[in-house]
Order: sequence, then structure tokens, then C-alpha cells
Amino acid sequence: MTLAAELASFDDLADRSIDDGANYQWRIARRPEGNVRPEDFAWTAEPVPEPAAGEVLLRTHYLGLAPVMRMYMTGTARTGDAPLGIGHVIHGRGVAQIVRSRHPDWREGEMVQGQIGWQTYKASAMTTQEKFFRMPPNGLPAALGAGVLGMTGLSAHAGLFACADPREGDRMVLSGAAGGVGSLVAQMAAHIAGCDVVGIAGGLDKCAFVQEIGCSAAIDYQHEDIAARLDALRPEGIDLYFDNVGGEILAACLERLRQHARIVLCGSISEYTRETPFALANYTRLRATDATMRGFFVYNHLERWEAVMEQMSGWIGDGRLTPIQDVEHGFAAMPRALARLYQGANGVQCCSVRGEPEEWR
Amino acid sequence: MTLAAELASFDDLADRSIDDGANYQWRIARRPEGNVRPEDFAWTAEPVPEPAAGEVLLRTHYLGLAPVMRMYMTGTARTGDAPLGIGHVIHGRGVAQIVRSRHPDWREGEMVQGQIGWQTYKASAMTTQEKFFRMPPNGLPAALGAGVLGMTGLSAHAGLFACADPREGDRMVLSGAAGGVGSLVAQMAAHIAGCDVVGIAGGLDKCAFVQEIGCSAAIDYQHEDIAARLDALRPEGIDLYFDNVGGEILAACLERLRQHARIVLCGSISEYTRETPFALANYTRLRATDATMRGFFVYNHLERWEAVMEQMSGWIGDGRLTPIQDVEHGFAAMPRALARLYQGANGVQCCSVRGEPEEWR
Repeated sequence: MTLAAELASFDDLADRSIDDGANYQWRIARRPEGNVRPEDFAWTAEPVPEPAAGEVLLRTHYLGLAPVMRMYMTGTARTGDAPLGIGHVIHGRGVAQIVRSRHPDWREGEMVQGQIGWQTYKASAMTTQEKFFRMPPNGLPAALGAGVLGMTGLSAHAGLFACADPREGDRMVLSGAAGGVGSLVAQMAAHIAGCDVVGIAGGLDKCAFVQEIGCSAAIDYQHEDIAARLDALRPEGIDLYFDNVGGEILAACLERLRQHARIVLCGSISEYTRETPFALANYTRLRATDATMRGFFVYNHLERWEAVMEQMSGWIGDGRLTPIQDVEHGFAAMPRALARLYQGANGVQCCSVRGEPEEWR
Repeated sequence: MTLAAELASFDDLADRSIDDGANYQWRIARRPEGNVRPEDFAWTAEPVPEPAAGEVLLRTHYLGLAPVMRMYMTGTARTGDAPLGIGHVIHGRGVAQIVRSRHPDWREGEMVQGQIGWQTYKASAMTTQEKFFRMPPNGLPAALGAGVLGMTGLSAHAGLFACADPREGDRMVLSGAAGGVGSLVAQMAAHIAGCDVVGIAGGLDKCAFVQEIGCSAAIDYQHEDIAARLDALRPEGIDLYFDNVGGEILAACLERLRQHARIVLCGSISEYTRETPFALANYTRLRATDATMRGFFVYNHLERWEAVMEQMSGWIGDGRLTPIQDVEHGFAAMPRALARLYQGANGVQCCSVRGEPEEWR
């Protein structure tokens, strides 16, 4: 099946609309094998839930999309949450407005972001597990809560500033440079940390895009020999490799490390659809140059949330950081949008369920 | 062939003696496949060299033994030196006295350590490449220059203090704990850094030994299930894994990391005789706990030489660090001693060519 046909197979699913009279949901119908397929998803409609004492009623405006969601569906995500079963609503963070509150700490009208799941309403006790944060009404669109001012932004910020120790003039390589996290890392590394960034992305369009947002050069992993291009663009080697993909690109960068190089393992999208994990045969290359490979998981950095969001909002305000968010419209389009993330094409980072709220406080 | 028979096959080689009238040498006769065999070595005797202007004549007292020497013989060591060819004298650091000097910076009677090679004399211009250091006449035996007060000691010190960031109470695991580097790391981690060290070693004797020198427990990798023993001895996980072996033990530790755990890749002896490198399929485990894997290469830490040697000499003096050095006697025994290093038995760290010098200054 071609990639286009794969996406088109979702068109029937996407041709549905929602209204305010019910809670619409996407659930796991079966475990995906390889990329997700329409048969993996089940659409349900239920009455809008009644919040119990201590709960709020959330009305969904945006839902984020991320590769890990396929892992939620296969039950193999290692995020600390209990694995989902067949019939469960798919996990996903999003942006919602509190339309009723029976919780002492949360008020009606507030916009929040957190674990909502693939549904248009949620009754929630706002538990720690759900990782809800308030969105300050600072004039920036609520949609950014599903991107730069959300977990994607925290991932980029924490990965770069808390883990990668970026230095002015660093010869940096960034994979997944056109993705949600990558496009923020590219901008912050180039415009704030002063690194020279070679971005790796798939296809001509994405390669042009990553150069527009700050990369000094790009490598098209779909059409170019990555090793040869790294040799050409990084003849002196690599000080910093920010890894969003894992696998062979990581191995290629390991062969080209400079003294005291740093590798940050942020994501491993290339791992998600492999039948067996990529085995890194050259990890000992860290030894010759006293190099460091550091992993990180964004949920370990939640205590930095407010400071990071304030700083990123400031950078958006002064133009150093441009929010980049391709938005898919319609809750029904979520399955197709997830399938597209794995095709290596320009994926969307969020689905608009209801667009911007009329007002929030 | 049994391990004992493998060693016994070297007995004819080892049954030779040297005198002061010639320069005896061990050279590469052929490339080893698997562990070294007698046929891989050639014994030569040449006239004692005449130092040219700008050179000194070195008279060898001790020669160190290390797993990397087999890699010198196969031509695959990645140490920055040019690979050796068939017929070349095998690389190796050792301790020697300057018995003639035509070099302005080095005096007759000084003891030095550096790249001597497997030979009983050497005429040397004392180049940077050879990495010679003076041994201060501080009352400690010259033999220690081939161990704790040599590159082995610097490896242990730099690996632990410059790379591993050890913290009081760290739940540490140390592989190769009975080896040259490992036995020093065990002592310094337990007695100076205050870590709780589980040592991994091969066999009952070595396991008893590592507990004598500071490990709170030991795992016998030859007879025990490493994963089960790690679960039992490190139920809360691992803060710090100091890796001297690589391979499956590294993979097992990666599965058990605590938040902000650190792995230091010091050596990979398990890699040296594999036909294909061990491929690390679970490197992404670094992500869940924000863990770090850092490699290091002792030659990147030479600028710390004097400070480290002074500090380690002090620790030897106050009893916190016990030099552990199994010495093989006789230059002719070098090939057998190298073979033994790969058998996982108690290997020697150095060969005595002439024993201690009568005096030095």
C-alpha cells in the first residue's frame, strides 16, 4: 500500500463531526502492528459526563499528537502510566476549558492542559497523575498549549538546556529537526544558545524548512547518504548531537564525535515500528573522546514547568522563537493524523477539536 | 584446549633468561585470532642500542600488562598510535631507569615510566608520543609505576573522580572489580567517595578478594545469574555503574538504573575477543531515568598526572589505598601473562624484568 493510500484509508473515519451534546471518543479497537490502521480505532459517543464532588468538567479544545501514542495503543509505552487495554480511550494530552468545577482549586473558565485523552469532554479530579497545568491568559493562543507552551516545548527546552549543555559555536547535529520538538530545539540552539546546527529531516520541503528556522545546513535522510553528508558538513566532527530518532543516525553520529561531545537521547521514533530494537554496536565510541550520552524523559522535568513556560513565552514575544504548529482540523481526523506522523511526511502536532475558546481567565 | 593447557603451551617460551649484554624483545609473529597463542610471538635479541644525540638509553625494570595489548597485536587498537605490523616490537608501558642520557631534560639515574615496548632496553628521544613521566624517589617501590602509580592508577582515578561523579551512599556496581583498574576503583569508591559497591568478578577467589578490599557484596559472573543477583543486591536500582567489561553486564545494568544514574565506560574487555561487537539493544533505557553514559580514555586525562599521582601516593601512605599488584617474574613470561589476562583468572598486572633498581634519584 502506498503512503497516500494508507492515509486515504482513514478518510471514512475522518468524515464525522461532533457536537456539544455528547462526549465523543477514540478508543483502542485492536493492537496496531506496524503503523496504525483504521481498524485499530473505535469511535464512541457517550453522554457528557457529570463531574462528581471534587471533579471538574473539561471541554476539549486541542489535542496533541505524538509518536508515543502508537505505543499507548500497542501497550508498550514506558511512561510510568499503566498500559491501556483494548476498549480504552487513547491517552493524549490536550488543552481544555473548565466548564464546570466542583474542585476547590480549579475555577470555571480556566484553560488548562493535561491528560485529557482522545475525547471531547472529560470529568477529572485533576490528579497528579494527569499532570494538569494552568494556561495563563497572556494573549498567546490556547493552541500553543498543545505545542511550544506544552509538553513539546518543555521537552525541547529541558533536552537542550538541562541536558545537552549547549555552548556557543558548538558543531551540532539535530535529527528529527522538522518535528514538534526538533523545530523548537533548532531555533533555540541556533538563536539562543549560539550553536551551528545541521538539521536532519526527511524530504526537500522539510530540509528547506529547517534551514528557514535556523539550521545552517540540512541532510535529507530519505534521499542522501547520511554518513557522507555528515563527513562533508561536519569535517571536524560533532560537539553535540540531539537525537530524536535513534537507530542508524545515532550510530553514524557516534562515529564522528569530538572531544567531550554530548549526545542527548530525546526520542527514538525509529525504534517505535521496528520489530526488534536497534542494537547499538558502536557505543564504545564514547570512550575515545570522553563523550557523554544522556537520556531524558520530559516527566522528570515537570518542576521546571512554570519557569520554562515563562521563558519560552518571552522568546515568542521578542521573536526569537516562532511557534510552529501544523494543526489538523476536526476530532475525527486524529487517527489519520497519527498515521501520518509515522510516514515521515510533514506531520501535524495537534488537532483542533473546537478551535480557540471565546474567552478564558 | 583447556585453559590450563592453553597456558602450558607457553611454557617453552617462558623458559628463557635475559642478560645485560643484549636487548631482548618480543615481537608480533602473526596476528592473533581469539586469545593469543605462542606462535603469535617472536623472540629476538639485538645489541644494546646506542643512544643518539638527544636520546637516552632506558633499561627496563617492569612492564605492564593490559588487555589492550592483544589489540596492538591484531592491529585494531584505537589508541591514536599507528597500528603495529608483523615483526614490530609489541607496545607496552613500563618502568625503566635512564642508564645513559644524551638528552638535555633527562638525567642518568632517573626512573621513568612510559612507552618502552616489550624489550629490555630502549633508546628513546622521549617524545610526547611515548608519554614518559618521571617517578619521584618518594620511598614507594618502582614497581607501582606499572600499576597504581601509572596509567592503571590514572585510569581508575580519572574514571571515578573526573567522570563518574561519585556521591556518598551511591548504590554502585563495578564490573572487572578484581582487575587492575577495578581493584583501585573499588577501594577509592568505598573508602574515599563513600559509595556502597557491589563488585562483579569471576570466580569465588576473586569475589572474596573484592569484598576484602571494600565491596559490600560480590557477584560471580562465572557461576551466578547476574540479573538475578543484581535484583537481589540492588533492589532499589543502580546510581552508578562503573563498566570495565561492556557487553551483557552493561545491558543488565542499563535495565536497573535509578533516577540520574551514571554509567562510566572505562574498559570493554568483553569486546576484545568477540568476532562481532556486542550490540546494545537497550541504550534507550537511559531516557526513562535521565541517566548518563560517559566514556573516557585515559590519555585524555594526562594533564592531571602529577596531581593524581601525588594524591594516590598520599592515600597509599595513609592506608586508604592498598597497592594490589600480582607480579609475574621474568621478561620471557610476558606472552603467557597476556594469555592469562583473557582467561578470566587472576591476571597479573605487570612483569618484573629486573626487579627494583638498586637506587634512583
